[in-house]
Amino acid sequence: MDNPILVEVSRGRLVESRHRGSVAVVDAEGSTVLTLGDVERRVFPRSAVKALQALPLVENGIADKYGLTDEEIALACASHSGEPDHVRVAASMLAKAGQNESCLECGAHWPLGDAATRALAASGGQPTQLHNNCSGKHAGFICLACGLGDDPKGYVKSQHPVQQAVRHALEDLTGASHTEDVSGIDGCSIPTYAIPLPALAFGFAKFGSGVGISPGCKAASERIRTAVARHPFMVAGTGRFDTKLMDILGERAFVKTGAEGVYCAAFPELGYGIALKADDGAGRAAEAMMAALILRFLRLDDNERAMIDAMAQPILKNWNGIEVGRIRATQELMV
Amino acid sequence: MDNPILVEVSRGRLVESRHRGSVAVVDAEGSTVLTLGDVERRVFPRSAVKALQALPLVENGIADKYGLTDEEIALACASHSGEPDHVRVAASMLAKAGQNESCLECGAHWPLGDAATRALAASGGQPTQLHNNCSGKHAGFICLACGLGDDPKGYVKSQHPVQQAVRHALEDLTGASHTEDVSGIDGCSIPTYAIPLPALAFGFAKFGSGVGISPGCKAASERIRTAVARHPFMVAGTGRFDTKLMDILGERAFVKTGAEGVYCAAFPELGYGIALKADDGAGRAAEAMMAALILRFLRLDDNERAMIDAMAQPILKNWNGIEVGRIRATQELMV
Repeated sequence: MDNPILVEVSRGRLVESRHRGSVAVVDAEGSTVLTLGDVERRVFPRSAVKALQALPLVENGIADKYGLTDEEIALACASHSGEPDHVRVAASMLAKAGQNESCLECGAHWPLGDAATRALAASGGQPTQLHNNCSGKHAGFICLACGLGDDPKGYVKSQHPVQQAVRHALEDLTGASHTEDVSGIDGCSIPTYAIPLPALAFGFAKFGSGVGISPGCKAASERIRTAVARHPFMVAGTGRFDTKLMDILGERAFVKTGAEGVYCAAFPELGYGIALKADDGAGRAAEAMMAALILRFLRLDDNERAMIDAMAQPILKNWNGIEVGRIRATQELMV
Repeated sequence: MDNPILVEVSRGRLVESRHRGSVAVVDAEGSTVLTLGDVERRVFPRSAVKALQALPLVENGIADKYGLTDEEIALACASHSGEPDHVRVAASMLAKAGQNESCLECGAHWPLGDAATRALAASGGQPTQLHNNCSGKHAGFICLACGLGDDPKGYVKSQHPVQQAVRHALEDLTGASHTEDVSGIDGCSIPTYAIPLPALAFGFAKFGSGVGISPGCKAASERIRTAVARHPFMVAGTGRFDTKLMDILGERAFVKTGAEGVYCAAFPELGYGIALKADDGAGRAAEAMMAALILRFLRLDDNERAMIDAMAQPILKNWNGIEVGRIRATQELMV
């Protein structure tokens, strides 16, 4: 089955590029609200499930044990831009568990944020593991290991108690099996398990609504959603799509991007969970798709609608600031 | 018509992302060697035609008038990484025409090359128009304007003699109409005209073989191909795909990437021209497709084959250097 074209990129009067994709919107009872394209195919959720991966940290009382702040809990769900505040908060999480940057096993890379990279280079600095966009999630994993009394060493391995707890949380919420045959290694070295989009969307519907999950999981989900809504900068960074969307919508939409064109969301007021993927892995397509689904499902005032409409159909400008084209979600999504 | 999947990106045992595309391979007589997908649809060639856009500069004797070197002619065909040698050569071209950076109308941006950007930031510098990846092409346009006795001001506009000369060269070579209704504005502000892939491939077949074009155009084409083959660093930069391919193959393959997943090539020994586009605009897909077509059509020794095979199926590693997956051209291309 060929997935439909869900995003077009125009230049002048012509369509220059086309993105296909698939979408699942599911409610908290597990009923399908919308599917587009082949939603049976398993998809690696990558960083889009970081909030679900942070549930054991909060649900087991470890976040409270170490007195993690809302900023720190938000950073545990982040693919951050490596800006100074992200680095500071990741270091603070590690210090609370009596650890430091040397315990991280995510690897170092230059900040995702271009301005942050240039500022770091201008200061004569080099990136550390704290600059890795996943450092907050990994700092959370180390807090979890230490809080449970486990040696954090090797916490990225699938056999480690941390990854077992994370896997169980994901299996519980999505109902999808997390077995070796559907596993891969993520950019930050932890295992990632491919999940059909409806199961992923169902997991986010539960995460957003608290329906069908234990009181402990419900409380942990609320704590995480509140923390992220209060600090949307922490989950992404300056000018990033997740940050902008949650700056506008607050707790009304929890959204999280993942590599290779994955995007997940929860709309608590509707009890909906969303999971989508651009076939080709393009982030620009996944972003336009998510903005279009927000326009379609959420009740927005004129101001919110205008801001999110601009994110669903961003204008492309060249190096001289001249408008050259547009990215546009297609009618199939906008209806 | 749905274009075929020509590149797959795997993670673990699963395919994570898929790229569709179209391909035209045409010989110097205009006969079709291979087409895949919908090749009637017009495609903006973007930077993939920079070598053809440089023809008027050489053919009109302006390159000789100003004593442009092979490095400078190669840079006129470049989407360069903004490394110090690129910036130096662009400035030298302008100086030969009695001009300087302030005449450029391409806009400034931080270097395409990450290492070049960090080095510039570390030195406390800011990008100028010379760092724009198109600065060599624009310096060539300014040489052309000055050499023809025209005011270079406004040389990016479609009515300027420079863009008229460029448009005529492209129309001559490809046989495709270059009219307003199929035009767009490129990233560097010059007009770009959408062309069906077979016409684009035919243009490159003529450019590579000299068949069916005037003696002057043939000589200019040879001069450009030789200059690029001698200085493949100039057309792209450190670690870039074009540079690596031509470092391996020399004059046997002229290859040039363009934005939004376009790639063009000429194989002079076969008289073939190639034009391809990844539907979604992904450069990683266009690169794997081009490497696969080189493996398919060119006679290579074991060493060359091994190097280019690695470029057609690059291994993806994460931040810890662990292999996580692969980009692979599909059988449809490799056969």
